[in-house]
Amino acid sequence: MVDFELIKSLQSPNHTRIVHLVMDGLGGLPRDLDGKTELEAAHTPHLDALAARSQLGLAVPVGPGITPGSGPAHLALFGYDPIRYDIGRGVLEALGIGFDLQPEDIAVRGNFCTVDEQGLIIDRRAGRISTEFNRQIVALLRQIELPGVQTFVETVKEYRFVLVLRPTAGQTLHANVSDTDPQQLGVPPLPARARDEASEPTAALLNDWLAAARQILKDHPPANSLNLRGVAKDPGLPKFPEVYGLRAAAIATYPMYRGVARLVGMDVIPVAGEEVEAEVEALQAHWDEYDYFFFHVKKTDSAGEDGDFERKMAVIEHVDQVVVPAILALQPDVLIVTGDHSTPSSLRSHSWHPVPTLFWSRTGRADGIAEFGERACGRGSLGVFPATDEMPLALGHALRLTKYGA
Amino acid sequence: MVDFELIKSLQSPNHTRIVHLVMDGLGGLPRDLDGKTELEAAHTPHLDALAARSQLGLAVPVGPGITPGSGPAHLALFGYDPIRYDIGRGVLEALGIGFDLQPEDIAVRGNFCTVDEQGLIIDRRAGRISTEFNRQIVALLRQIELPGVQTFVETVKEYRFVLVLRPTAGQTLHANVSDTDPQQLGVPPLPARARDEASEPTAALLNDWLAAARQILKDHPPANSLNLRGVAKDPGLPKFPEVYGLRAAAIATYPMYRGVARLVGMDVIPVAGEEVEAEVEALQAHWDEYDYFFFHVKKTDSAGEDGDFERKMAVIEHVDQVVVPAILALQPDVLIVTGDHSTPSSLRSHSWHPVPTLFWSRTGRADGIAEFGERACGRGSLGVFPATDEMPLALGHALRLTKYGA
Repeated sequence: MVDFELIKSLQSPNHTRIVHLVMDGLGGLPRDLDGKTELEAAHTPHLDALAARSQLGLAVPVGPGITPGSGPAHLALFGYDPIRYDIGRGVLEALGIGFDLQPEDIAVRGNFCTVDEQGLIIDRRAGRISTEFNRQIVALLRQIELPGVQTFVETVKEYRFVLVLRPTAGQTLHANVSDTDPQQLGVPPLPARARDEASEPTAALLNDWLAAARQILKDHPPANSLNLRGVAKDPGLPKFPEVYGLRAAAIATYPMYRGVARLVGMDVIPVAGEEVEAEVEALQAHWDEYDYFFFHVKKTDSAGEDGDFERKMAVIEHVDQVVVPAILALQPDVLIVTGDHSTPSSLRSHSWHPVPTLFWSRTGRADGIAEFGERACGRGSLGVFPATDEMPLALGHALRLTKYGA
Repeated sequence: MVDFELIKSLQSPNHTRIVHLVMDGLGGLPRDLDGKTELEAAHTPHLDALAARSQLGLAVPVGPGITPGSGPAHLALFGYDPIRYDIGRGVLEALGIGFDLQPEDIAVRGNFCTVDEQGLIIDRRAGRISTEFNRQIVALLRQIELPGVQTFVETVKEYRFVLVLRPTAGQTLHANVSDTDPQQLGVPPLPARARDEASEPTAALLNDWLAAARQILKDHPPANSLNLRGVAKDPGLPKFPEVYGLRAAAIATYPMYRGVARLVGMDVIPVAGEEVEAEVEALQAHWDEYDYFFFHVKKTDSAGEDGDFERKMAVIEHVDQVVVPAILALQPDVLIVTGDHSTPSSLRSHSWHPVPTLFWSRTGRADGIAEFGERACGRGSLGVFPATDEMPLALGHALRLTKYGA
């Protein structure tokens, strides 16, 4: 675990620039054809040449055998122990739709469901209603008013929505409140229950809101009821720029990654489009303003989730051709190329497998392995290492930490 | 972190001998000429042959990216978590000049400085006065007497000195006292302030001493005032011989390393000279009396600090030619060759880079890598490991720990 107080006490600012290039779900598994992973099969001359001058290793996001979600995986890359620092589900869901969450907001995931005449749940996902239908009923739910809070209801997709309570009377709400989803059929939804005294007002507000919402929804089958889950608040994480002494910027196209970066205190740079070319332009435009750039590539993960080996290869090749040379042309002092977790096409999902990672800097010892891939990284001198080590290592490579002790 | 209680409970004495050969600042960085580090470029036939029969790895002294001072780095080699076990600056400074520090002594670093007519600091280092002038004014400061303590004032060099207070009335003094150096110009020195009630008598003594010292110094510009920093006491570390069940000896020529070894309870063997040949003679002379030898080589670090790649190579080659064969001729059971940290010539300073390390024993599994160097160690089976693991591993290799559990 990174000792934030120690790192803070050793900060020694200089003019170096660090780029953290994160290909989401980068790690993969071998295909039958030739036993190669997506990254190994991809033609990546720029990454391979960079690898020859770098240190390689395999990063473990959370722990051995543990498959991380996107939130914990990114926290780890930023140096935050993802077990200790927990971003609640409600907050992640709100960030995921780009909701401008404020520190005092209570964020909750919502699911529409179907209940029978006795009020017993018969479909926990309301027949997976369309996103369009979701928008119509969410518009109705926005009419509900609660005392002392402003409420926001936002469509996510299909049967999922987000509810946010924002205190308007200067009061503090607490988020230690249980889910209402009983996770089984044939029983009624549970009430929201406070797990500590301080959270009782929140539970009461949520139960009032649920009662009003069910009154509205009873005429809108199959979404004639609903459940709330993952009641959460901004966890108040230590701030990345303060911990590391870095002016930090995030370049990402998906709301959730922008949201997590904002939670740790990075500036989120506007990107004009969804393509990596637009992200590169954003990097170039803001190069002089920051010491650290988190550069996120989403489509590696999407391809893996779709089980599309060839498309994941193609995304990696595109990053190799477009992004890597553009970053190097800016002459950074430290470049880390990694992923937040593995998303093997063969599994069509996130997985626990350690993530191929490369550290290049002017002050590193190159391993001399001229290939960037899972097995090549397994032979690297970084070994299998916790992803939370990446930021302290980056600061070391950038000579941004002074000596500890005499 | 080493579990000292566990290790103690498993001690299983035998007649093995362990040698811990520490080349200070051993790790390096590649030079442009051929991409080799100092250790890789050095001609080291004995170390290479030994490597072929050893396990190799890269030791991390404090943590990823953290550059250690000599004190913390050596504590780590001896198995002490260098974050948890802190040797105060005053103690390190006293040890560094070979002062015979006692457990109840309060040790303080002192700096002579220059103040103007209003008593405001105009030079924090008193124009870097000569060591000779330092000796003259230190002699005057020895006249100051304080109630209930014996005082020692010792020249370090230039503007630096050490002050030690030794209780004579059986009382215990505490060291939680702030620095008087405001670390800026144009302001007066601060008083010494106790940070807890128990340290108030110490702060009062130091302030009395400061007042008397300034009275004496006022006629000795540019050293017409002074500051005290790093008030500290022997931290009362767990004792190495007790923790590991080893009769332990230190062979080192520089006072600081002898001092740290003494703080952890090793016997410090006299060495007749500054050269490694004299250290080898000391090893041979005391071979039968100890189970463990800490053998320290200073000049690798000095050459690195001077930015002298060739000289660092030459020191390593000399150790290879003289020290390694002499140790092997004594037929140890375990030989560890390592450094306390890296001191790359290209950086002219300590650095965070992991340290090439070799474990040879009769009961090890040789990696079969016939080269001792940074990259070779990066391929070794020890991987990247905490330096604090070296002592437990040494005991394992020496078969000095009994089975844990049934």
